[in-house]
Amino acid sequence: MSEKKSIQLSHGGGGQEMGQLIKSVFFNAFDNDVLRREEDAAVLSLPGDTAFTTDSFTVSPLIFNGGDIGKLAIAGTANDLAMMGAKPEYLSCSFIIEEGFSLETLKTIAASMAEELSVSGAHIVCGDTKVVPKGCADGLFINTTGLGTVHASGISARNLQTGDAIIVSRDIGRHGATVLMNREGLELESDLSSDCATLWPAVEALIGAGIEIRAMRDATRGGLSAVLNEWASSSDVGISLNEADIPVCDEVRGLCELYGMEAFDLANEGTFVLAVPAEQADVALSVLQWFPFCPQAAVIGSVKDERKGKVVLNSAWGSSRFLELPQGELLPRIC
Amino acid sequence: MSEKKSIQLSHGGGGQEMGQLIKSVFFNAFDNDVLRREEDAAVLSLPGDTAFTTDSFTVSPLIFNGGDIGKLAIAGTANDLAMMGAKPEYLSCSFIIEEGFSLETLKTIAASMAEELSVSGAHIVCGDTKVVPKGCADGLFINTTGLGTVHASGISARNLQTGDAIIVSRDIGRHGATVLMNREGLELESDLSSDCATLWPAVEALIGAGIEIRAMRDATRGGLSAVLNEWASSSDVGISLNEADIPVCDEVRGLCELYGMEAFDLANEGTFVLAVPAEQADVALSVLQWFPFCPQAAVIGSVKDERKGKVVLNSAWGSSRFLELPQGELLPRIC
Repeated sequence: MSEKKSIQLSHGGGGQEMGQLIKSVFFNAFDNDVLRREEDAAVLSLPGDTAFTTDSFTVSPLIFNGGDIGKLAIAGTANDLAMMGAKPEYLSCSFIIEEGFSLETLKTIAASMAEELSVSGAHIVCGDTKVVPKGCADGLFINTTGLGTVHASGISARNLQTGDAIIVSRDIGRHGATVLMNREGLELESDLSSDCATLWPAVEALIGAGIEIRAMRDATRGGLSAVLNEWASSSDVGISLNEADIPVCDEVRGLCELYGMEAFDLANEGTFVLAVPAEQADVALSVLQWFPFCPQAAVIGSVKDERKGKVVLNSAWGSSRFLELPQGELLPRIC
Repeated sequence: MSEKKSIQLSHGGGGQEMGQLIKSVFFNAFDNDVLRREEDAAVLSLPGDTAFTTDSFTVSPLIFNGGDIGKLAIAGTANDLAMMGAKPEYLSCSFIIEEGFSLETLKTIAASMAEELSVSGAHIVCGDTKVVPKGCADGLFINTTGLGTVHASGISARNLQTGDAIIVSRDIGRHGATVLMNREGLELESDLSSDCATLWPAVEALIGAGIEIRAMRDATRGGLSAVLNEWASSSDVGISLNEADIPVCDEVRGLCELYGMEAFDLANEGTFVLAVPAEQADVALSVLQWFPFCPQAAVIGSVKDERKGKVVLNSAWGSSRFLELPQGELLPRIC
């Protein structure tokens, strides 16, 4: 009886049991016309420019304050598309499941994926299920690969121009701090939750408002530091930040002090950075502030033609230092 | 020194080390214009109908007679596209690597992927790298997701028609038998190697020769039994097979006897089944026989309007039995 409620090796064998699992869990959650065809590949019509991106998710714990691996897998891949100005349209999903994994948890995660898909309107149109023996994986890994139709062109890490304003969509570091807190079983910061969210609605509104987005990226692994250093290097410009303008909530600040980390290096999963012409910054901010997942959108700095390739962090007290590309073993299995 | 030669958690952290790993191993092996742009997503133009498919690979051992997980990941996804009549064009690849994995082996596997890509001319245009702590995965898992341009339409498991000939492209069961042999350390069958191969060149030639392909599928997990049972059920037809016409090499036959398995249920990774109008069977066979990976292409049966939903296996001695959809714990981690 209890055996039936967990995933068995036979669920990945390509036979009857796999067919039943796929139908009862995945088709049930993700139902749509293309998926129902059950061919080796989905056949799609993709006019115009198409964005294509992939991500594997190995987050631990699988369920955290504000989300789970399923929500993360959908939002994460949708966000990589959105960051190229593309509307998420079609996703594949592939599960690597450890023998003995709870069927109930798998259903919960699939339901969470379906709910997150509804934010962008994207559909899962093909998938794959593998089961590995106990001890060969840690619970569940999910790969999602996405296709989106490009609605705005020219967005590129190479496209920053002197004078551009750098905007962040909300307070930084929540996802990394939340996963750390949940992993360590910390209670003290229990109001803290991940920023995990699908960003396409905000991006669509920015494009609709005519904002000329020069560069845009969600600040996932490596956090704000990684994105800005990559931009400074790719565009051969300097980026100057005002530390006091970068929103960080008290809980994240507290955890950073406790663990000796920097909020700039922590992963986010629903927070993005964009570079826009300075004169469009106010409009961009007012558009972002319509969205509940961009509560503290702020201009945090600007693009300079000095100190090229570097990100300079200016403190409220007049001192400044380089914000470096993160190095070393940051938090593993954050996404 | 030895630490530098294995993958560390920092290689998956989104910082400097990850950037170096991606450039030195993956960009080096898969170099192309789109990949070099290093954006969150690749931007592609995909006119006409596009096939989209995903697969995660967890094969054990990672290197086996006739291939490795890299070759398998490229051929497997390319084949899912080819089976829909689509030319493999663009692939994503995503690596989940266990901390401590050999950098040298990773390079070997990447080189093997690059070599297999050259068979179809497809390119890897985006990717992802995750590193999980020791014990959280077994060495290396790879997801490949592919996009292909559809060159022949109407190929479907629902499209079999009474009288169609059923063709298999070569002797069956090699991949499953080889992985089993390598895993068990058997020496006696050492001439045996996997059929692992990219099938697009043969499919392209069949389409070019004007063969009306009704249904086509590579016989991976669940083997020939799974494909034919699915077809019989989806098209609501009977499939009658002549056992003596189904090619099985002596080594596979021997291993099946030793382990009490059926060659029909064993996985293949470069063997496909197709249904074509009976009058085109000879032309299809002669086209297939041009290709070194289809050395024993053969008509193995035909589609009937009796015993609908069932596959009947007729022995050379006049007896017959149903070939059932495989059940239970076949070989795990075959692909």
